[in-house]
Amino acid sequence: MDINGAFSQLIEVEGHLIDSMILTKILDAIMDLQGSFEILEFNVGKRKEDQSYARIEVYGESQEHLDSILRDVFRFGATVPETLEVSYSPAPRDMVLPDDFYSTTHHSTSVYMGGHWVEVEELMMDKQIVVEPDAGRARCKPIRLVEEGDLVVTGERGIRIRLPERPRGGVGIFEFMTSDASSEKPSALIIKNIAEDLRKTSERGGKIVVVAGPAVIHTGASSALAKMIQMGYVDAILAGNALAVHDVEYALFGTSLGVELDRVSGKREYRNHIAAINEVMKAGSMKAMVAKGKLNKGIFYQLIVNDVPFALASSIRDDGPIPEVIQSSVEAQSLYRELVRDADYVVMLASTLHSIAVGNMLTSRVKIACVDINPAVVTKLSDRGTSQAIGVVTDVGTFLPLLVEALEKSQAPA
Amino acid sequence: MDINGAFSQLIEVEGHLIDSMILTKILDAIMDLQGSFEILEFNVGKRKEDQSYARIEVYGESQEHLDSILRDVFRFGATVPETLEVSYSPAPRDMVLPDDFYSTTHHSTSVYMGGHWVEVEELMMDKQIVVEPDAGRARCKPIRLVEEGDLVVTGERGIRIRLPERPRGGVGIFEFMTSDASSEKPSALIIKNIAEDLRKTSERGGKIVVVAGPAVIHTGASSALAKMIQMGYVDAILAGNALAVHDVEYALFGTSLGVELDRVSGKREYRNHIAAINEVMKAGSMKAMVAKGKLNKGIFYQLIVNDVPFALASSIRDDGPIPEVIQSSVEAQSLYRELVRDADYVVMLASTLHSIAVGNMLTSRVKIACVDINPAVVTKLSDRGTSQAIGVVTDVGTFLPLLVEALEKSQAPA
Amino acid sequence: MDINGAFSQLIEVEGHLIDSMILTKILDAIMDLQGSFEILEFNVGKRKEDQSYARIEVYGESQEHLDSILRDVFRFGATVPETLEVSYSPAPRDMVLPDDFYSTTHHSTSVYMGGHWVEVEELMMDKQIVVEPDAGRARCKPIRLVEEGDLVVTGERGIRIRLPERPRGGVGIFEFMTSDASSEKPSALIIKNIAEDLRKTSERGGKIVVVAGPAVIHTGASSALAKMIQMGYVDAILAGNALAVHDVEYALFGTSLGVELDRVSGKREYRNHIAAINEVMKAGSMKAMVAKGKLNKGIFYQLIVNDVPFALASSIRDDGPIPEVIQSSVEAQSLYRELVRDADYVVMLASTLHSIAVGNMLTSRVKIACVDINPAVVTKLSDRGTSQAIGVVTDVGTFLPLLVEALEKSQAPA
Amino acid sequence: MDINGAFSQLIEVEGHLIDSMILTKILDAIMDLQGSFEILEFNVGKRKEDQSYARIEVYGESQEHLDSILRDVFRFGATVPETLEVSYSPAPRDMVLPDDFYSTTHHSTSVYMGGHWVEVEELMMDKQIVVEPDAGRARCKPIRLVEEGDLVVTGERGIRIRLPERPRGGVGIFEFMTSDASSEKPSALIIKNIAEDLRKTSERGGKIVVVAGPAVIHTGASSALAKMIQMGYVDAILAGNALAVHDVEYALFGTSLGVELDRVSGKREYRNHIAAINEVMKAGSMKAMVAKGKLNKGIFYQLIVNDVPFALASSIRDDGPIPEVIQSSVEAQSLYRELVRDADYVVMLASTLHSIAVGNMLTSRVKIACVDINPAVVTKLSDRGTSQAIGVVTDVGTFLPLLVEALEKSQAPA
Repeated sequence: MDINGAFSQLIEVEGHLIDSMILTKILDAIMDLQGSFEILEFNVGKRKEDQSYARIEVYGESQEHLDSILRDVFRFGATVPETLEVSYSPAPRDMVLPDDFYSTTHHSTSVYMGGHWVEVEELMMDKQIVVEPDAGRARCKPIRLVEEGDLVVTGERGIRIRLPERPRGGVGIFEFMTSDASSEKPSALIIKNIAEDLRKTSERGGKIVVVAGPAVIHTGASSALAKMIQMGYVDAILAGNALAVHDVEYALFGTSLGVELDRVSGKREYRNHIAAINEVMKAGSMKAMVAKGKLNKGIFYQLIVNDVPFALASSIRDDGPIPEVIQSSVEAQSLYRELVRDADYVVMLASTLHSIAVGNMLTSRVKIACVDINPAVVTKLSDRGTSQAIGVVTDVGTFLPLLVEALEKSQAPA
Repeated sequence: MDINGAFSQLIEVEGHLIDSMILTKILDAIMDLQGSFEILEFNVGKRKEDQSYARIEVYGESQEHLDSILRDVFRFGATVPETLEVSYSPAPRDMVLPDDFYSTTHHSTSVYMGGHWVEVEELMMDKQIVVEPDAGRARCKPIRLVEEGDLVVTGERGIRIRLPERPRGGVGIFEFMTSDASSEKPSALIIKNIAEDLRKTSERGGKIVVVAGPAVIHTGASSALAKMIQMGYVDAILAGNALAVHDVEYALFGTSLGVELDRVSGKREYRNHIAAINEVMKAGSMKAMVAKGKLNKGIFYQLIVNDVPFALASSIRDDGPIPEVIQSSVEAQSLYRELVRDADYVVMLASTLHSIAVGNMLTSRVKIACVDINPAVVTKLSDRGTSQAIGVVTDVGTFLPLLVEALEKSQAPA
Repeated sequence: MDINGAFSQLIEVEGHLIDSMILTKILDAIMDLQGSFEILEFNVGKRKEDQSYARIEVYGESQEHLDSILRDVFRFGATVPETLEVSYSPAPRDMVLPDDFYSTTHHSTSVYMGGHWVEVEELMMDKQIVVEPDAGRARCKPIRLVEEGDLVVTGERGIRIRLPERPRGGVGIFEFMTSDASSEKPSALIIKNIAEDLRKTSERGGKIVVVAGPAVIHTGASSALAKMIQMGYVDAILAGNALAVHDVEYALFGTSLGVELDRVSGKREYRNHIAAINEVMKAGSMKAMVAKGKLNKGIFYQLIVNDVPFALASSIRDDGPIPEVIQSSVEAQSLYRELVRDADYVVMLASTLHSIAVGNMLTSRVKIACVDINPAVVTKLSDRGTSQAIGVVTDVGTFLPLLVEALEKSQAPA
Repeated sequence: MDINGAFSQLIEVEGHLIDSMILTKILDAIMDLQGSFEILEFNVGKRKEDQSYARIEVYGESQEHLDSILRDVFRFGATVPETLEVSYSPAPRDMVLPDDFYSTTHHSTSVYMGGHWVEVEELMMDKQIVVEPDAGRARCKPIRLVEEGDLVVTGERGIRIRLPERPRGGVGIFEFMTSDASSEKPSALIIKNIAEDLRKTSERGGKIVVVAGPAVIHTGASSALAKMIQMGYVDAILAGNALAVHDVEYALFGTSLGVELDRVSGKREYRNHIAAINEVMKAGSMKAMVAKGKLNKGIFYQLIVNDVPFALASSIRDDGPIPEVIQSSVEAQSLYRELVRDADYVVMLASTLHSIAVGNMLTSRVKIACVDINPAVVTKLSDRGTSQAIGVVTDVGTFLPLLVEALEKSQAPA
């Protein structure tokens, strides 16, 4: 036999195989791992609306070699033709998985159970799938939440992944940004397009979540973000202690980390930072400060009076933290997950830590605009496949005021 | 009167006023805030060993203006001549400060209490001072640990700060690095000098603390760090969940986030990351894995068999986290503080979050070498005054192996 | 008719259409520009060695629309089935092109002329093709070198492009690096692989060209580069005035821009930089200095004694420049082009300006390793298609000594 | 004798010695080089307006050691009390200096010649001083322009340097930016202050020079810069070939490097870049295009119709270059130097190469605002002493439109 590999498996794959690069990824993965393949059938979608279909025999040199190839290939949406029931076994203890557990991608995933394809709920990347065969349900769970006896999906069979498709025509801001790796893009045009996307998302009742770092305050953009909230463009904010503390400091004293933000001065009141924390401690919470009239402008004032939910996660570098900040990373993750669960559009503003945390919680269906002056952060986040994420390498202190201007203009005709 | 400012205060300052720029900072601060001054007396140290002494009348336009000037001036070590007792008042509730609390710098600080200067213990930046007048003790506390009734220092009087002095002659690696802002420095020379500093610190019984991010593993430098521990150059490690998880993943599977680190291959076992967590979960801890012979190389293996303490802080982006990681940010800060308390030399490796957290806990007496490929991190950390911190903009994956080579050579003659 | 577009053109394409993403790029381009297509025939290569073939009808709404689509599609290697003779017309004046001139890609290109496919010589990106129909030759020329009457290729017909193919199996360092965008890669492993590639290139008589910026000297890596030259791993060096001036400064005085590179000191002899230039001016050239025994170590010493050619291009920021530096940018480009013409492997070291200049002169067949601490430079250069270029985000001061160590080990068994 | 150093020299220094850190720099330099000193007299300026005066005996271990200390110390403005005539000797050949030539700083410099202090004209950094004793003139010359017989200043005596002084009260944008190294600054506030500085400079007849890189076009900010020129805020532009070529490309075709800047589209006309060059080649120059009505908007259109001079320097990476670009780096430097000679304010926009070239030509009296998204560039440029340069780490594509808005508002009341 002229094929290098005595062990083989037939796989199938369907969709916009060529332009969404699904088939490319599958063949690349096989060759990267030194396997072979034979394309037994390939019905190519003739026109841009049509789907393609391929049947491919994959060859490896040993069963183990073949299995390692298949693990990769399945991540790109290939399935085996004879649909097998998904396999699972009970978690031996709380937070312990069966050894051959299945690890998820961030693409839509279904499991074949009881003769039907069941969509996995609450999908996130690098997590496990827990099934309830009687209820016909499958749910994604992080290892920490796995309880003894949970039926955890194992192996690679009976699982089907759907990669996001490339839009069938024309170029939106997402395709525009990813069509070229250069960071030198027309800033005003990008901002105008993000504003339009946000307006459309908002008009059709979509959920917009903002992830924000403290640089939003330091760069003087907090009133722009406060304005966005007031205009109704923010459905939840995910951040850390620093965003809240600096926002309160600015609202109370006009400074951020002691530096005056509205005039050029040599004044630096180092203690304002702790004084802001102290005011929250005295009142008991930012909510209580708003109720007592002690906090009457800024991001958190707007969030509270407009009943927009927020989740603040603590980190090792926090001063305070103030009461509304969740000290347990595990509890903070739960609340983050809850707030982004049905997000349609996530805007990430100058926060590596929280942006990457949130990125890991999003399926490939959610649009992401990641804004940071550091190209490394933007690359990390936007490296999630064409047409899901755009990275804007810019200064959040100039970006946000221009975005609010564009939102105001965008709304005018409505 | 020709002085612009009817309100005035006499201040004194002593030390190497000129070359350590203490007087510069004081006069700059006064002028930045549009105050005036008259230097009433200035005895300049004639030779490089001699201290200088200055008496200066500071003028402001109002008592408030004068006070804001004095607050800045005191941060640079100025005192008032007639030493007043430090003032303090009880914290009204847990985690709530008196309104006019004093906020610390990271320089050695004493308070004048019961007629004596009392050195503030456990000094950290942007914290408060709690005094026990009967015991003649003063201690630094973060707001979160302040308890109802704690006597918190208020105002600015009765407090004396000592800025670190510039070494009297010649140039060490710390002066070399800060003598010029350029990031283009002779790498091998810097590494050799850091190695020598570490050896000397170690030889005289000093404490070396390493702060490390997961890039240490991704860039293939984990065996170099493991070697440093084995050689006895690490007295504590401060890190997060990711360092431990990737270290275990590499020890068990040879991969980091699924990528093989020792050979160029297309293999990417995404699940290894969670599988490593699962192995720790099964064993109960990394310590238990070592005891059972399941973990037998890498950073944490070396830490555990050499009884080197470590503190792992959780963050919002953690998978797991594994059991030895502290989920509460407040508890993690406590353990971090405990482990760095008497550090002499801190090496920060490719970790923005943990490095900045630790930076805030260090007095200006502790040497810091901060290594990162991102100049922004290095700038942030090394911006702490001449001769305390050096920033090395380099790749940790090439830096650590060369540092270990230099340590081996440095030790040879000993 | 259900196709949106009344204007159409049949195209053909052949090669590893799927895994080299050729077909993906073609279909994406059509859809990006809101065109349509019908795949009339698609013979997919069944096994990894086999080539595929596709015939596609492309539709546009107007002839102009269709033409703009075709221009893009031809860049990815599509051709029209009935091979037309390439069209051309004479340049109306020196340095002036016919209006509908053809602009090249960096991929292997042929023109159909006199009934034969003629490979375009000296191919570079964004240049023009000048044909000599009688001689049956086609040559790439930059606009500046186009002379009145030169027959410049116009339109898009009769031109065939071959994209580089993805290797058929396994993963080399080039595939390894581009399989994942993250900059956190195992440094030592990458260095070892580049060393092996260089050794293999050298062993089979390939040409290795080094592009180097002055940071090579500032970071203390000049003796490593000098060693590489001595070992025979460098067939040409392309750089600017600064590399030579700092190399001479270091060889004569042990400093670079006045900073001592071999010991930590406060000495900074600002005038050494100009003094080095003055010594070259006195001798007349670096070559003359070597002949007189005045320059006896360093990069340029090794280049001169080993008869390795170099090209030094001047820039607006040069001091001097010294005699061997070419002051005219146009002449410098000519010499650069000459030296890289038959390069097989180009190593770019910490030089944005010269690296990008050279990048534009290379066809997609030449391997590129681009080393820089700034990820933006690396991204720019390595964004040239899988398996041509790798970007190594690291410190050249640690990279080069480790590369020389690896080259020494790599050679040992030979 | 208890002083370590038998060789000594009395020096004097005058000015705002403490707050402008002159004395700090002098004492630091002595100690860095392991010398000693004795302060014989120190009359400190009592109030902020007053100047200080110091007489210091500097000690070294050998004459050579002492001389190396003095060289550094003189760079910070120290002089010797008994004013000696400046020494000089004739250049032995064109472009060759006497061996002990003096190398300049970028601070105001005078030479003592014929019993008078003569201010050095056309001062630039790292250049030489050529004197005409009969005419009582001294002029700065780069080595390349030194002619045989030119009287080049040698040694360190008879030369006096004046460091720029720190403003006597309050904080302007320059002090604000340099008071803290963090890059997280309030962007809108900074932009407003730069706009005000530009307006004031313009109103008092000051000269504003703009240095600009092609990212101004790519990021969509060209119409903002064109507007600034039209408003009269630009007295000269220094740039390279790319700025002009992309500006013409955008004016003619609406694209930059083929990418449409005013709408999100998939269209990429790679040839437009060369087509723009071709149009300039056809017309003969941009000026000719304007005259013929072929170029009627953009940066260069505005420059030409408003008679604002510009200098375009070629580099190794240029396509073309177009006729108005100077191909010789040496000639381009001459024109750059001519245009910045009497500049009062230089705005540097996203161009490392040209910004550093221009930075080296400016005395410390000229204000510099350096705008770049890469903090490394900004650090390099702004590292020129308090109150001369500010670095703004931001996106030029958002910065320029906001700057023009601020200029329009700033002018309104006038």
